[in-house]
Amino acid sequence: MTFSPAAPRVTLLAGGVGGARLAHGLALALPDGGAEHLTAVVNVGDDTERHGLLVSPDLDTVMYTLAGANDEERGWGLQGETYATLEQLARLGEDTWFTLGDKDLATHVVRTAALRDGEPLSAVTTRLAAALGVRARLLPVTDDRLRTLVDTPSGRVAFQEYFVRRRHADAVLGLAFDGAATSRPAPGVLDAVAGADVLVVAPSNPFLSVEPVLAVPGVRDAVRASSARRVAVSPIVGGQAIKGPAAQILETLGHEVSALGVARLYAGLVDVMVVDDADAALADPIREIGLDVVVTDTIMGDPAGRERLARAVLAAVGHPVP
Amino acid sequence: MTFSPAAPRVTLLAGGVGGARLAHGLALALPDGGAEHLTAVVNVGDDTERHGLLVSPDLDTVMYTLAGANDEERGWGLQGETYATLEQLARLGEDTWFTLGDKDLATHVVRTAALRDGEPLSAVTTRLAAALGVRARLLPVTDDRLRTLVDTPSGRVAFQEYFVRRRHADAVLGLAFDGAATSRPAPGVLDAVAGADVLVVAPSNPFLSVEPVLAVPGVRDAVRASSARRVAVSPIVGGQAIKGPAAQILETLGHEVSALGVARLYAGLVDVMVVDDADAALADPIREIGLDVVVTDTIMGDPAGRERLARAVLAAVGHPVP
Repeated sequence: MTFSPAAPRVTLLAGGVGGARLAHGLALALPDGGAEHLTAVVNVGDDTERHGLLVSPDLDTVMYTLAGANDEERGWGLQGETYATLEQLARLGEDTWFTLGDKDLATHVVRTAALRDGEPLSAVTTRLAAALGVRARLLPVTDDRLRTLVDTPSGRVAFQEYFVRRRHADAVLGLAFDGAATSRPAPGVLDAVAGADVLVVAPSNPFLSVEPVLAVPGVRDAVRASSARRVAVSPIVGGQAIKGPAAQILETLGHEVSALGVARLYAGLVDVMVVDDADAALADPIREIGLDVVVTDTIMGDPAGRERLARAVLAAVGHPVP
Repeated sequence: MTFSPAAPRVTLLAGGVGGARLAHGLALALPDGGAEHLTAVVNVGDDTERHGLLVSPDLDTVMYTLAGANDEERGWGLQGETYATLEQLARLGEDTWFTLGDKDLATHVVRTAALRDGEPLSAVTTRLAAALGVRARLLPVTDDRLRTLVDTPSGRVAFQEYFVRRRHADAVLGLAFDGAATSRPAPGVLDAVAGADVLVVAPSNPFLSVEPVLAVPGVRDAVRASSARRVAVSPIVGGQAIKGPAAQILETLGHEVSALGVARLYAGLVDVMVVDDADAALADPIREIGLDVVVTDTIMGDPAGRERLARAVLAAVGHPVP
């Protein structure tokens, strides 16, 4: 609980699995599980309503992972889940293509009830994270409604329609962030960006996870203006995404499918790119566009691997932790 | 599905377990599971919000029992329930004194979402009952909010606070039906009462289950005016309630704790009282207040016992079924 002056204040911009794993690594590397030192600002563009309940997949993935309670095999949801409610929902005629476990449902039930009672998303998130034993601070980028919409060859669809129902098989022709223009950063977000010693862009999907965070008015400018050392970890390794459709989306949107392509997207927003050993050859081309580069093993499997990457990221920006 | 002219159209006014069991017996006795012949008009005064979800205990007990899916041992809830969501809700800081199973939660989730979308309670009830295979018609007495409040020595409390949380241990000094005065009968209720050949008051708690049904403006008058043969089954057998606090409530509200006490409450509303063999001695006193009496075994254990009582009730009002 005590603030450790030796450790940096770290703010992470995060989406789902990649963001969750790096958040976990940072929580392990920083004092006291990241309490007082780590703030994760999380995408809410993936949020959706299912069966009348608000589901916040990215927030929950980060929260469950920080709590050590997530299902490591799938990367999302809680360990040891059962599906009795979902099976009964199907019997009652509900469309159950979006998998919700019984324990996971408790999160959505509490959150939905809180929001209907007027509690902001950030406040109920703080409450839920504390109940699960999370020490780091977890913030939705906004308390307002922001929804990612995906333009596909068959038209514009809601994010989870694209991502889960259609298993991200459609070509992504464009993205829109419904509500972003009028959204406001959640309390604490701008301060966390401005006041950090280190600002980390997680190895999350640049378009689906990071862009909707930056699209909240004020956030991109705060990142640009921040005096923090700013570092991004490439989600593309050896020309492929670790998980999810980042590679396809880079391609259909006309970007190079590589850590260099990602670096070009983040030029002006970060000072340092962390790329995988497999992409050592891209270090010079990335330096040519004005970014420092650190090459390391970026694959985060178990908690030890996450902590290792977190330590490498902090060291890359001159804030090694003991 | 075909209307059988030989079978009567039966409308049952029902609360929870007693109402559910007699509804089940009637569904077994009438053609085609009660389709076209049986309407259960059910109390909603027990309804409550838990974790932001609308729970309708009496409707669900009748629905689950008619579906053959209820937990017979407890009398409420579904068979083979698990409690993963409830346990997680407790971990998240929720007060979980009201037990909700994982499968049962699906009902509340669907109902709550439907109501928030503007679907009336009666419509979503029809949909849920059909999904569970219920053939009889199930109607909440009203689509409007009606909540039973209980006056106890320590003040007025919500019904489930009295009934579940405090295990109906308080003396009931009075009852109020919040919202009743401005509520309207759900579509079909008055027609079901007026157009029935047989109107049955279930062996439910007269104060907690039947009175809030009659308290919806128009319902009591429709019962009084109905040309149906009207029959009530006493929930008091040998001076005791089969289940629940009916006996204590009769006593604290100044009524005789017997089938005769119940008959006095229903005088003017029904033509025939069905009392248990144990109360044969009360037949003459009940006749003296102007009601016909049929003495039979009113204990409904298994489905066969329910059907037997249902047949006795229909025969008691001159509508025996083959």
